[in-house]
Amino acid sequence: MQVNRPDEPAYAGGATFQKLPLALDASDLEGADIAILGAPMDDLVSNRPGTRYGPRAIRLAWDGGGPPEAYNIDLGVDPFAELTVVDHGDASVVPGNAVASHTGIHEAVRRIVAAGVVPIVLGGDHSIAYPDISAVAANYGPGELTVVQFDTHADTATEIWGVKYSHGSPFRHLVDENILQGDRLIQIALRGYWPLPEEFKWMRSKGVRWHRMEEIADLGIKAVAERVLEEIPDDNNLFLSVDVDALDPAFAPGTGTPEPGGMTSHELLSAVRKLVLVKGLAGMEVVEVSPPYDPANITATVAHRVVLEALSAFALHRGRRTPAPENP
Amino acid sequence: MQVNRPDEPAYAGGATFQKLPLALDASDLEGADIAILGAPMDDLVSNRPGTRYGPRAIRLAWDGGGPPEAYNIDLGVDPFAELTVVDHGDASVVPGNAVASHTGIHEAVRRIVAAGVVPIVLGGDHSIAYPDISAVAANYGPGELTVVQFDTHADTATEIWGVKYSHGSPFRHLVDENILQGDRLIQIALRGYWPLPEEFKWMRSKGVRWHRMEEIADLGIKAVAERVLEEIPDDNNLFLSVDVDALDPAFAPGTGTPEPGGMTSHELLSAVRKLVLVKGLAGMEVVEVSPPYDPANITATVAHRVVLEALSAFALHRGRRTPAPENP
Amino acid sequence: MQVNRPDEPAYAGGATFQKLPLALDASDLEGADIAILGAPMDDLVSNRPGTRYGPRAIRLAWDGGGPPEAYNIDLGVDPFAELTVVDHGDASVVPGNAVASHTGIHEAVRRIVAAGVVPIVLGGDHSIAYPDISAVAANYGPGELTVVQFDTHADTATEIWGVKYSHGSPFRHLVDENILQGDRLIQIALRGYWPLPEEFKWMRSKGVRWHRMEEIADLGIKAVAERVLEEIPDDNNLFLSVDVDALDPAFAPGTGTPEPGGMTSHELLSAVRKLVLVKGLAGMEVVEVSPPYDPANITATVAHRVVLEALSAFALHRGRRTPAPENP
Amino acid sequence: MQVNRPDEPAYAGGATFQKLPLALDASDLEGADIAILGAPMDDLVSNRPGTRYGPRAIRLAWDGGGPPEAYNIDLGVDPFAELTVVDHGDASVVPGNAVASHTGIHEAVRRIVAAGVVPIVLGGDHSIAYPDISAVAANYGPGELTVVQFDTHADTATEIWGVKYSHGSPFRHLVDENILQGDRLIQIALRGYWPLPEEFKWMRSKGVRWHRMEEIADLGIKAVAERVLEEIPDDNNLFLSVDVDALDPAFAPGTGTPEPGGMTSHELLSAVRKLVLVKGLAGMEVVEVSPPYDPANITATVAHRVVLEALSAFALHRGRRTPAPENP
Amino acid sequence: MQVNRPDEPAYAGGATFQKLPLALDASDLEGADIAILGAPMDDLVSNRPGTRYGPRAIRLAWDGGGPPEAYNIDLGVDPFAELTVVDHGDASVVPGNAVASHTGIHEAVRRIVAAGVVPIVLGGDHSIAYPDISAVAANYGPGELTVVQFDTHADTATEIWGVKYSHGSPFRHLVDENILQGDRLIQIALRGYWPLPEEFKWMRSKGVRWHRMEEIADLGIKAVAERVLEEIPDDNNLFLSVDVDALDPAFAPGTGTPEPGGMTSHELLSAVRKLVLVKGLAGMEVVEVSPPYDPANITATVAHRVVLEALSAFALHRGRRTPAPENP
Amino acid sequence: MQVNRPDEPAYAGGATFQKLPLALDASDLEGADIAILGAPMDDLVSNRPGTRYGPRAIRLAWDGGGPPEAYNIDLGVDPFAELTVVDHGDASVVPGNAVASHTGIHEAVRRIVAAGVVPIVLGGDHSIAYPDISAVAANYGPGELTVVQFDTHADTATEIWGVKYSHGSPFRHLVDENILQGDRLIQIALRGYWPLPEEFKWMRSKGVRWHRMEEIADLGIKAVAERVLEEIPDDNNLFLSVDVDALDPAFAPGTGTPEPGGMTSHELLSAVRKLVLVKGLAGMEVVEVSPPYDPANITATVAHRVVLEALSAFALHRGRRTPAPENP
Repeated sequence: MQVNRPDEPAYAGGATFQKLPLALDASDLEGADIAILGAPMDDLVSNRPGTRYGPRAIRLAWDGGGPPEAYNIDLGVDPFAELTVVDHGDASVVPGNAVASHTGIHEAVRRIVAAGVVPIVLGGDHSIAYPDISAVAANYGPGELTVVQFDTHADTATEIWGVKYSHGSPFRHLVDENILQGDRLIQIALRGYWPLPEEFKWMRSKGVRWHRMEEIADLGIKAVAERVLEEIPDDNNLFLSVDVDALDPAFAPGTGTPEPGGMTSHELLSAVRKLVLVKGLAGMEVVEVSPPYDPANITATVAHRVVLEALSAFALHRGRRTPAPENP
Repeated sequence: MQVNRPDEPAYAGGATFQKLPLALDASDLEGADIAILGAPMDDLVSNRPGTRYGPRAIRLAWDGGGPPEAYNIDLGVDPFAELTVVDHGDASVVPGNAVASHTGIHEAVRRIVAAGVVPIVLGGDHSIAYPDISAVAANYGPGELTVVQFDTHADTATEIWGVKYSHGSPFRHLVDENILQGDRLIQIALRGYWPLPEEFKWMRSKGVRWHRMEEIADLGIKAVAERVLEEIPDDNNLFLSVDVDALDPAFAPGTGTPEPGGMTSHELLSAVRKLVLVKGLAGMEVVEVSPPYDPANITATVAHRVVLEALSAFALHRGRRTPAPENP
Repeated sequence: MQVNRPDEPAYAGGATFQKLPLALDASDLEGADIAILGAPMDDLVSNRPGTRYGPRAIRLAWDGGGPPEAYNIDLGVDPFAELTVVDHGDASVVPGNAVASHTGIHEAVRRIVAAGVVPIVLGGDHSIAYPDISAVAANYGPGELTVVQFDTHADTATEIWGVKYSHGSPFRHLVDENILQGDRLIQIALRGYWPLPEEFKWMRSKGVRWHRMEEIADLGIKAVAERVLEEIPDDNNLFLSVDVDALDPAFAPGTGTPEPGGMTSHELLSAVRKLVLVKGLAGMEVVEVSPPYDPANITATVAHRVVLEALSAFALHRGRRTPAPENP
Repeated sequence: MQVNRPDEPAYAGGATFQKLPLALDASDLEGADIAILGAPMDDLVSNRPGTRYGPRAIRLAWDGGGPPEAYNIDLGVDPFAELTVVDHGDASVVPGNAVASHTGIHEAVRRIVAAGVVPIVLGGDHSIAYPDISAVAANYGPGELTVVQFDTHADTATEIWGVKYSHGSPFRHLVDENILQGDRLIQIALRGYWPLPEEFKWMRSKGVRWHRMEEIADLGIKAVAERVLEEIPDDNNLFLSVDVDALDPAFAPGTGTPEPGGMTSHELLSAVRKLVLVKGLAGMEVVEVSPPYDPANITATVAHRVVLEALSAFALHRGRRTPAPENP
Repeated sequence: MQVNRPDEPAYAGGATFQKLPLALDASDLEGADIAILGAPMDDLVSNRPGTRYGPRAIRLAWDGGGPPEAYNIDLGVDPFAELTVVDHGDASVVPGNAVASHTGIHEAVRRIVAAGVVPIVLGGDHSIAYPDISAVAANYGPGELTVVQFDTHADTATEIWGVKYSHGSPFRHLVDENILQGDRLIQIALRGYWPLPEEFKWMRSKGVRWHRMEEIADLGIKAVAERVLEEIPDDNNLFLSVDVDALDPAFAPGTGTPEPGGMTSHELLSAVRKLVLVKGLAGMEVVEVSPPYDPANITATVAHRVVLEALSAFALHRGRRTPAPENP
Repeated sequence: MQVNRPDEPAYAGGATFQKLPLALDASDLEGADIAILGAPMDDLVSNRPGTRYGPRAIRLAWDGGGPPEAYNIDLGVDPFAELTVVDHGDASVVPGNAVASHTGIHEAVRRIVAAGVVPIVLGGDHSIAYPDISAVAANYGPGELTVVQFDTHADTATEIWGVKYSHGSPFRHLVDENILQGDRLIQIALRGYWPLPEEFKWMRSKGVRWHRMEEIADLGIKAVAERVLEEIPDDNNLFLSVDVDALDPAFAPGTGTPEPGGMTSHELLSAVRKLVLVKGLAGMEVVEVSPPYDPANITATVAHRVVLEALSAFALHRGRRTPAPENP
């Protein structure tokens, strides 16, 4: 269902990710390759709130108008010309009731997956990883899904402030509840002052792999991306979990728990491109964009481009094509 | 066409005015009483730009969720229960081409009026008054439409910087081109340093009436509203043109040409209520909301409530009901 | 316990309300007249979050330095010279667990009241009214406490989004659970589009009284304050519940659900002064200050001054003194 | 010396107050009626800094373009058509050396006055009142100059934080040093929590008169302005000292020590108009505009209009004309 | 013409680039080496507006005071000691009339070039490249001028939204109209999702060269700058076109169409230095600075430093000197 | 003295650096290893003010709650578990009296050093280097203390605007007054347009060493840090002076004199880590954080992390331990 007029400039209209057709009902998902889903909640953040406005801001962070068109000049592909991408709207969230919101998000992702469509979830705080990854993982056999998580924080606590399914704990429970194998979780850009040794000990015991920001600083993002690719079993499906706080606060000020010393936008986009080109995409989430702390909208914009980069690479991967960069 | 899920909170979804059904096509307008239309342009402002983002900001400036519901506690009516209100999306505007944008706006309003629906246009700079009022006026016999304009500036120049259909000149041309009778234009809240004697002379020669801000300060808005009502011929239809800079910049910082010493939000809402209760509503525009200068979103919010106030009063007027305020 | 150096400017130090002594432990409360308490939570808001930063912002919104001193020039009294005021720090809140936060707030207020001290609670969202008013009410016989609530919204829903003890429902449950008599609740500044007839019906059935913003606009705040005073039984104790959204967004942009058309700061301060001068103060809360939407800090500042006004008036009331304004 | 092109829009150019000719040298002042002077300093503020950027912001807070033209529609006069107004640039201030800055400001004002020109000084913090008023007062016999001060704070301390010529003490020293007679100082809009009884005692002993904000709230600004006019000796010359914090923070958020409960912009403009219409203008300062706290530039804008209002009224006063408002 | 007092701090005064003499008239340009020109327009942007305030912001983005002095510590030169640099004010732009503004800009640059002076134009949107580069190119034989363009976007569309001389098309028309040879256009930092294959095809057909951001990421800016130098014919004159969106949004949030993954400020400054050291400077433009989206003014500051870097390098180039960095 | 409740979230409470115990009195310092001290002043800045709010903002820039705990995952140490760190509050500063503030800062640091505690001073403008470094240097024999200064500007003027102990001159006087040996001063990240040759000449004459930003760009921060380590005599004690404007404005917008082309946060943190690991820490200052220009609080956050990084490295250094990074 088209909810924008044709040839509308960027600042006109406003419903969907880059003016994509809206596909609110399960039946609308049929035939789609990718569905965007909003998960507007911030009930479980421990510091600055505001991610409830994340999906709206990310959807609108595009400067082009007209029908969806986005020609990736480095890859030589327009994903919207190759893939059928729709916007499934926002999951049914309930203000002040995180459990209900998680249920709504899980249901919506399940619905997308059931239709044979790849979900891209726009957060929302990182607690949504539990409901959305569990919905995707259910679709694959054990050990068939690998999650690559870009993040400052490992998010592997048993609980945060006594809250089990918090934004700092989803990966603990995904693994402990056997939804995800520990050796199918790979983390990139860890730095700073959390988690504690106990969490790292658990991570090691479960076979979780991670690449601290220091490794990127030492080797470069390309080498680290290669290492990550080697850590993913050949036939595994890739789920990307992108917490924008993996970026340095210079690049992503609009987030709840910024940690200096992080990735550049170019590094993040480059890694996402590489991983999806090789492994395709079974699902994705981009989380922790908090518009009240994003005065020039640059955090929402980089989150939007992370999605676009994944779409572009996926278009090539699925078409078994190689990048055709625009060169002189 | 419903573009939001039922029971969505305010910060979820995002397409339409207060989650109203989207009615993009002319055929969708059938049966509606009111249609909201965005006119996202700022090509013709002479000072601070940004009104191109006005329609989007106004549409979203609501804190309620779920299906459209807005019980006016002073009037005892929910306009959405009484009226069929739809969102016709944005007019076809063209960045950098004000003439084309005016054409697009005129066409969209004409379409709405042709369907027997009352248009409420969200600007956009005040230049849109020419295309939208002309589309409404065409529907009535000569002298059948009265425009009441809340504004700091009379907007009656022959041209601004040599541009004829500027945001400072629409009412000059509406009258000079016999689209609107001069004595069918009533202005409220004029103050400050513009226009010049030449414009006032023209205004007098055409029978334009106006009420300076001083008059409101001296007599109170209720008395001024009564005077305005007396100036409207009995059987005339009312078009409201609300420039948010009629408000003091404290109440409406997010506008392009703020002028201190203006109305309070309460005064504006009170006058709109009164006028529409008595005269009904043949059309309306709310213009000059500039989100880049509205850090806490309060300007978009008061613009939204001006629309809601007009809708509430119109619901009573049409139903020939009197206000039933909620009292203890 | 003094946590600031003597003669520190406003921008130095930073722990307590206006550099008051910190009294974190129950035993520290002994001998105090008034205790400030922070209730930093925003878990239950339905629109813009951020009130978790409210207490910190309000505490620091003072431009004087040195030891606490605040000579009210209209009343001729410095409350800090007359009253022993301490800062009890923040209640034990738990991010993401509103029930636990409510318990922590209730416990802290109970502790203050048990020490014979008058609590002033800095929110936080308005859901805290339930735990804090219930702790104060428990100290009085039935019908001995009157709550005067300044607010745009009545906050008398049975639930908001299915959440019972939400920021939109505390007064419903305080009355329905017989913690507060319905005829001991008086609301000021109601306006806009909520609540619905059902809530008003319940309010009438319980004897709740309210004064819409329209009444203030028509009669002036002084007359309305007189009416409110008449509605309070002679020997009743006064609890003030001040939601900053009672103010027009021009005066209080930094709040979650701003509603245009509200009170001026002068009106609010004037009414608080009047009520406390006559009735004294058994407790108070100032809620819904959201710093992320308060770029120039003016909302936190008016919230701070509302506390100071109440303290000043209380100092006179307790000393059975009349105002001695500084006149030439 | 013209430093702007003719017919430049508001956002082009940028040197002078409303694109006035620049008159940097003493010799350039000859023949002028009014000279604007910037006093960019904030060395002596006790709370939020930033007034060093005040003059620049005020100068540019105009939305018109072309040559200076400002037709006051309430008075029926364009001051720039009646008066020769120039911009004398900024006084020689020295960062980190308040004494030197005061000297520079005093010298510049002395230069303006010596040329027979009326100075209008754009602050800067209120400490500049000492150097600028002393330069103006030196031009008149004892008791020939009356200062009317719009301000939240009396600024009559002997010292602030041990600093004698602070932004909180200028009026104490102007009177104590016999530069200004105590009964030639009239203050309007005092409120809040400063100064202390000691200062008020001194003020009474010197014959200072003041009108608290409460008086404006009770009687209206027109009546208070009448009272002030009665307090000015018939043949006295008027110096206006306008501290923007006389305004409520809603109208003037961009200031260092905002105090809720203040004047509206309309009240301030109205009083300035009245006073100058009757008494003319011997000098003026507009102080305490702090742009870093003025995100939508509304404080600088009202400061600009206060100057324009004084100029407009002065044009009529000097021409012995009465207001000729533009009416239908 | 000096429009600032000597020894004025940064925040005093305000007319010209770094307090340079103002040279508004053609005759004032005589003897100058460099003239700064503002081109304040944003009529042709397709996304966020605001560049009309660019020239003013860039001019003032300097923290030094006193007479123009800027000793480049890496090059060992103060350009203002070596070159006569003046500020020619702003071109005659007309709000709402892009054609007239282009004419005004063209005329002003033509005037500068005719005086034998090198123009540095401060935008404004990138549409100004057409009028300003055409004025510079007219001064050289065919193929004598090479434009090096730092930009995210190639700006080689035939039209944007039907507007021919848009901010996305200037380089297309400069080449197609034989003002600039296609092989005299070299672009740096292209990335993201625009232009489309059609534009790239045209670019190839015309001999345009470009260096995608990926090339900088792979080889480093020094190597890319070397390649660019090799691409410029030996005796060609260099025009620099710097669109600040070449920078990553972290470094330049204040722009209309930010694209993540861009250059660092250090890379841009380094490349500008290198190019001008070797090739000198025939003209320059710095465009797309949008102050409303630049809350800490960092975008205007980097734009200012790009100019200063070019001036510094040009001073050495013209004096046939080599860099003399300040080392211990 | 504990001024926070146990298990308080980040946004609750608010007195001390990361909820450390407050140690206001000299006697409270006993037994401590490190004391944090605020130096809230901005009296001596020459451009944008606001650093008076720096200490408060840095103290609160932490997203964790509960008791101080900060496990550095790259070093494998929690400094708060190894060191006794206290917050000594703010030094006695006097608004408008820089001399008195310097005295207060000197006294406070002297007090800390006298108690055998390492001071970490949070600025404030960089003028505080004179009082705080002189207090630390007094504790060591001549030539026993090496200052490593991260800064855009050398701050080695004899005076700024005639002010001797300015924020641009502390290192000149520390050396000229023999408080610090010239060859014990090493500067990192110099760039831009200041100081002038005269200052560099003096620096060479005194044996000052420096590493321009270009050197970091060419060699990488690791190599430069190694060079710096070689320049520090073996048995010397290290004082770190970190001016946040060493960082690029993208990473530290909230500062008074931003200079594009600077360090990344990762580079700064990496260098601080390296230097302290090898040399320990005799004292430290982090200066020039200006919150009014830091809308998303990222500058205060990186300043906070610089302190945390130094603490972490110091904990290892003192314990003669080597880093134990958390690896899979």
